[in-house]
Amino acid sequence: MKRTHTVAILGHGVVGRGVCDLITNNQRELVHYLGCEVKIAHILDLRDFPDSPYGELVTHLFDDILLDESVETVIEAMGGSHPAYEYTQAALSAGKNVITSNKEVVANFGDKLVRLAAENGVSYRFEAAVGGGIPVIAPMLSSIRQNRILEVRGILNGTTNYILTKMFTYGDSFESALSDAQALGYAEKNPDADILGTDSARKIAILTALALDMLPSVDEIHTEGITGIRASDVRFAESIGHRIKLLGRCISNGGKPVVCVAPFLIPCESPLASVNGVYNAVEIVAEPLGNVMFYGQGAGAGATASAIVGDMIPIVTGGGYNPIVPGFNRAEHFIRAEFSTFSSRFYIAADERHRDELTVLLEAEPYSEEGGEVVYITKEMTEKEMDALTERFEGELLSKIRFI
Amino acid sequence: MKRTHTVAILGHGVVGRGVCDLITNNQRELVHYLGCEVKIAHILDLRDFPDSPYGELVTHLFDDILLDESVETVIEAMGGSHPAYEYTQAALSAGKNVITSNKEVVANFGDKLVRLAAENGVSYRFEAAVGGGIPVIAPMLSSIRQNRILEVRGILNGTTNYILTKMFTYGDSFESALSDAQALGYAEKNPDADILGTDSARKIAILTALALDMLPSVDEIHTEGITGIRASDVRFAESIGHRIKLLGRCISNGGKPVVCVAPFLIPCESPLASVNGVYNAVEIVAEPLGNVMFYGQGAGAGATASAIVGDMIPIVTGGGYNPIVPGFNRAEHFIRAEFSTFSSRFYIAADERHRDELTVLLEAEPYSEEGGEVVYITKEMTEKEMDALTERFEGELLSKIRFI
Repeated sequence: MKRTHTVAILGHGVVGRGVCDLITNNQRELVHYLGCEVKIAHILDLRDFPDSPYGELVTHLFDDILLDESVETVIEAMGGSHPAYEYTQAALSAGKNVITSNKEVVANFGDKLVRLAAENGVSYRFEAAVGGGIPVIAPMLSSIRQNRILEVRGILNGTTNYILTKMFTYGDSFESALSDAQALGYAEKNPDADILGTDSARKIAILTALALDMLPSVDEIHTEGITGIRASDVRFAESIGHRIKLLGRCISNGGKPVVCVAPFLIPCESPLASVNGVYNAVEIVAEPLGNVMFYGQGAGAGATASAIVGDMIPIVTGGGYNPIVPGFNRAEHFIRAEFSTFSSRFYIAADERHRDELTVLLEAEPYSEEGGEVVYITKEMTEKEMDALTERFEGELLSKIRFI
Repeated sequence: MKRTHTVAILGHGVVGRGVCDLITNNQRELVHYLGCEVKIAHILDLRDFPDSPYGELVTHLFDDILLDESVETVIEAMGGSHPAYEYTQAALSAGKNVITSNKEVVANFGDKLVRLAAENGVSYRFEAAVGGGIPVIAPMLSSIRQNRILEVRGILNGTTNYILTKMFTYGDSFESALSDAQALGYAEKNPDADILGTDSARKIAILTALALDMLPSVDEIHTEGITGIRASDVRFAESIGHRIKLLGRCISNGGKPVVCVAPFLIPCESPLASVNGVYNAVEIVAEPLGNVMFYGQGAGAGATASAIVGDMIPIVTGGGYNPIVPGFNRAEHFIRAEFSTFSSRFYIAADERHRDELTVLLEAEPYSEEGGEVVYITKEMTEKEMDALTERFEGELLSKIRFI
């Protein structure tokens, strides 16, 4: 076997540095399992890092990497769609493998990039794009694909899970829990991609491609965030033995797939209910396998670096074959249309002055009344039915959260 | 790609039939992902199955399989060491891949069989031997092996976990929970391999080989079962926010590995604490990955068949390469010796007449006294220290359970 596998890393932020550290610190493990050393030839960043042990490897020119024939694998840890997408295209076209943690690029351009990789006989791999260090993509590509997948559901965003856990454990308001997450560095200054559900939507799009062989457009996915969750919603959930979690879900639904991101009420016996703090988890329901769940750190330098370097193993030991191709076909407009048929029970809270009208419309007695609020747990109904029922309360309902 | 992959199945019990069903029912998924059909050529069993849809495939002669050159993969679902081991040897020597769910054979002879497979250019794979349908072996062989593994700990036996869950949820005694498990078919008439910890010891031996590159002898592993767990122990655990779970643990311990099977007190925030009923879970602590956990059904026809057929994917799509070789070297006598250095806090319960003496020996005040029993939570100490301290109470201590 050859002696060295040469890589270049795009981006020297938290993730890029984590990859440098892993390759440096675990060289013994890499040699043992890969059968060769791993050498970092270049690091692309706009900045200089005079004090970093990797400072000498930094270049500001992507061409230094693209034109270096010794570079076999490019690790893209830049984030953002551009120029990450263009650099990935260029690297694959030049016959280099690409490994990425960039869910935005995979969700938006994964179909094109997987095909481009196949055409060039190289790999495009992205275990780190979903669930951080948790092996999720790899098992979905090998260990479980002989099953019929009925559903994939996951806590895919650590920031929102931290906020919901804080609200549950300490009774915090959403705003206070968010400030706390920002102070600890778990949430960014502009937290919209997390709290509005966009990040989770990108990740469930990728998982849908692997589960159902169709990559939905992210903006076709029904997406709700957690900004509307109130401390009293969390308390209500607890009072009935449930937790509120932001889930990405993709349900095969007999060939009419439903994909969505929304907060759900989960019974506390469910394994997803006990996934707390910044941890992520993905649960797969398959036939005949049953339920399996993968759990771990969804972000952070070490976990993400582990997933990125893990993607080198099949590249180095198994050649350039890319097994991802079957699933990554763009699905046009199949998602939003089907969501109206999605069916669940709802928890509804409203001002008590709507009680009489809601009791008639929901065909349910109030579950409880307290502090000027009336609460219902509805029978199972479709989104379409619920929309019709609550149309006239637009903006008036205090809470509307689905049961899983 | 070729059109058919031909297999033979040894054993037509629950697992063997599950494999037949999966191959039959999910042929579409198999063709899609494997790129070829899967054909069952023979089923070996002592019995006849005139009413089974697979009845015509049954043979009583192993040679019908061994001498059939069209059979590329033998699925061993017989259980027990013999003749499963000899049949596996013969099949590998004849250049056939072998897939097994037989943890007894893997734990006892895995080192020899992995080597034999490599010598013959075929695969010996055993995802189904640990954790039923949960992908555990595959991620340990690929997605996470670039890490330094610090610990693997798992709930590896569904029968004992069902019993402990029943004791926790309903306050049952061990005996009553065991009867219940037997009535439901979760425990066998002779449940010793489960309740004495032997089954868990086999599985942690296999995981140790993958984590630490050394396969311990099962009888060198310190093994305690759950027969001594009392309803009052379970209640005590709950009162301090813990659960009691039977764990297999392998700890790298800076190059002096500790491997054991024993009941442990686990804080209820730990993800392993919420693994209930017949479910299994394996948690891996690695550097820089952090903690990951894999959760799912540890037994049953569907889950086990999923793992077995999943092992065909690398065989069919990736050729005969067996990536398991590095880890499967027999470790001689390294296990039991190190266990005496293993360190933990203990929960100790004893008759109250031993109170004064224990208070001195344990250097701890009683945690509680009730119903003629005195309870201690000790400081951290090694097994050797604990053994010395409690030697004189041999047979007199009512409970001695470690904290994780």
